[in-house]
Amino acid sequence: MFNSRHGGRRSVLRAGLRTGAAGLAAAIAERAHAADPPPPAEPEWSQTLGPGIGDQVYGQPSRFEADVIRRNVPWLTANAEASVSFTPLQYQQGIITPSGVFFERYHAGCPTIDPARHQLMIHGMVDRPLLLTMADIHRFPSESRIHFIECPANGGMEWRAAQLNSLQFTHGMIGCAEWTGVKLSTVLEECGIGKGASWVLAEGADGAHMTRSLPLDKCLDDVLLAYGQNGEALRPEQGYPLRLVVPGWQGNVSVKWIRRLQLGDAPWFTREETSKYTELMKDGKARGFTWPIFAKSVITFPCPEMCVKGPGIYEIRGLAWSGLGKVKHVDVSPDGGINWTRARLHEPVLPKALTKFTLEWRWDGRPALLQSRAEDETGFVQPTLAELRRVRGSNGIYNNNSIQTWQVKPDGSVFNVQLS
Amino acid sequence: MFNSRHGGRRSVLRAGLRTGAAGLAAAIAERAHAADPPPPAEPEWSQTLGPGIGDQVYGQPSRFEADVIRRNVPWLTANAEASVSFTPLQYQQGIITPSGVFFERYHAGCPTIDPARHQLMIHGMVDRPLLLTMADIHRFPSESRIHFIECPANGGMEWRAAQLNSLQFTHGMIGCAEWTGVKLSTVLEECGIGKGASWVLAEGADGAHMTRSLPLDKCLDDVLLAYGQNGEALRPEQGYPLRLVVPGWQGNVSVKWIRRLQLGDAPWFTREETSKYTELMKDGKARGFTWPIFAKSVITFPCPEMCVKGPGIYEIRGLAWSGLGKVKHVDVSPDGGINWTRARLHEPVLPKALTKFTLEWRWDGRPALLQSRAEDETGFVQPTLAELRRVRGSNGIYNNNSIQTWQVKPDGSVFNVQLS
Repeated sequence: MFNSRHGGRRSVLRAGLRTGAAGLAAAIAERAHAADPPPPAEPEWSQTLGPGIGDQVYGQPSRFEADVIRRNVPWLTANAEASVSFTPLQYQQGIITPSGVFFERYHAGCPTIDPARHQLMIHGMVDRPLLLTMADIHRFPSESRIHFIECPANGGMEWRAAQLNSLQFTHGMIGCAEWTGVKLSTVLEECGIGKGASWVLAEGADGAHMTRSLPLDKCLDDVLLAYGQNGEALRPEQGYPLRLVVPGWQGNVSVKWIRRLQLGDAPWFTREETSKYTELMKDGKARGFTWPIFAKSVITFPCPEMCVKGPGIYEIRGLAWSGLGKVKHVDVSPDGGINWTRARLHEPVLPKALTKFTLEWRWDGRPALLQSRAEDETGFVQPTLAELRRVRGSNGIYNNNSIQTWQVKPDGSVFNVQLS
Repeated sequence: MFNSRHGGRRSVLRAGLRTGAAGLAAAIAERAHAADPPPPAEPEWSQTLGPGIGDQVYGQPSRFEADVIRRNVPWLTANAEASVSFTPLQYQQGIITPSGVFFERYHAGCPTIDPARHQLMIHGMVDRPLLLTMADIHRFPSESRIHFIECPANGGMEWRAAQLNSLQFTHGMIGCAEWTGVKLSTVLEECGIGKGASWVLAEGADGAHMTRSLPLDKCLDDVLLAYGQNGEALRPEQGYPLRLVVPGWQGNVSVKWIRRLQLGDAPWFTREETSKYTELMKDGKARGFTWPIFAKSVITFPCPEMCVKGPGIYEIRGLAWSGLGKVKHVDVSPDGGINWTRARLHEPVLPKALTKFTLEWRWDGRPALLQSRAEDETGFVQPTLAELRRVRGSNGIYNNNSIQTWQVKPDGSVFNVQLS
């Protein structure tokens, strides 16, 4: 069960001992608290000079972190160019997703774009069409904001119980970054928005010319034309040199490698908003334009890739997010949703951004069903998968924001399960 | 002069036209606003498939961003192992410094540490000495926070007017990251702090055994034992697998590759706090233990590496920080400190973190002397170099938080100058 006091007031290691269990916590404590510990042996790296300045130009992770990479599910897509890779969320520390492992989604592979030749055209129902170079775009007032981007297919394999035993694959089509760019409203004002314009078509410069319709109101609200990601230029996989960032909405509308914006008075009903990225309901009709990501959360430790090792005190860690604003609170259950305890949210809690939560958990070594449930500032509460299925059936792929259950077995291993 | 209204309400491009100047803004506007712009030519990357998923494991920047790297000043240090490289701040977008270009400072090169063998010993005036593995440390409650780390030698070359014409070299010994780890107070509570203990010695596992004394009060306040940086494990250059993060204090006390903490009742007066990292005053005495970084700021655009191109409207961009808390405001001067205008601070404004500021600037093409001046929430106002020199003389290397002046010449080039 949970202890409502968390945050380090009690001894993690001694409490492990007090449970009387013979698990790792006890072992750590016995060894670590030896009355007179021998000084650690002097390893070779403390007796030598390491590589100096100039031996590298752009830094890389330690070679001991080679497991922290994006991964794909080979059977999920017909080819590698219209495919996806998943963020290793099981290793994510904090709310920023490293740019090197931020999930990828391509419709025609990842284009290599020369920024000196890239242009953005803005036309249609505007007073003055514009053709902008990257240098032009960098001159506009800049804006930096931390936001998540999630593919609506994240969790899609769970709809049909094609459950992979992996946090990376259940929830890894998400990342959170500090994006820098220009407010789209600033650029549209420059063009002069034509009378009657109410929609914007966004088209990418990739071979697929990925194209989506967006309401003008959203474009004037908080959409960015972003050229920066986590302090540097966008990575190629994320739309270098320019992409839309449509905060809180499903990822595919944050069109990457953006080359064209057209203003009009109706949506265009492109392929990507008719045959794709719609939700087939149980009556055979399809829901389209389901943009916002609703409140969602997942426990990142423990998870299938990160097991527990013996009874004792652990810190349950997780991430929560909402496309409608800030996360208000997260509750955690140790028993499949019967009992709930409020978790601690870590600052900064930012709108439409990943939010870190933690809760102290004393594991007695018996089977557990860990769940987290987010509520956002609009009052939306993350549903169960059963609740979603009652409304939408099981034809869908998209917009699965349901509560994830991790089953902890007595040996400490963790499994992805669905409760009926 | 500045226009007090900023943030995109007016037309950047048309305002450029209205100045009547024949600069780039006018040229952009004439071309970009052509009544019927030809559609952009279809580049080769829009007609082909790019590399698909699986062609890479850990993502890298675009090859067009090869200039965004750390750089060193070869004559600055006697060898490469006890040396420094500088963050390319002239390219930084937002407040997060990419881990791949976060400045390096080594005393014996960069050790390659196997995390499975790394240990942290805590001993001295404690009730129960501890010897912790990385697995032990990961079990403690975690904490994520965004903080800058700045070497006190940042700006050191300016004291003696060894001025390099480069923002990277005047201010590049700083970076800001989301750090994740354990509060040091949590681990020290686990040991039980001995009666009378008031200081902590921190020792690194590098070949130099970099060692500093820290007051216990600071250690119990906000110091982290960090293992995460910007969402992933620390980079080797930043102390992998474990470092101290001492928020707001000069960088060298955030001991990297940390292997030992000893509690005592007096500072140890190590080499790095006696012959090094002290300030030689004009009377020949040295100031030691000058830990906090005081309020500081710099304009990152324009700067020597990022010139302006013809008269017109620009956005002055910069970064401000304080080791004492939050930045309260930043003022910007176009004329070497005669007139000042308040800049816009961008959210999130976090304590002991880089803070982004911007201000619209209408450049008339005449010579300008751009300065920024930060004030923090304690009321500390960033001084001029002349003011610092009156107090400290010119023997020093460290703790130069003075106002930087960028001279803009009529051709748009930008120079690092010191005003008398």
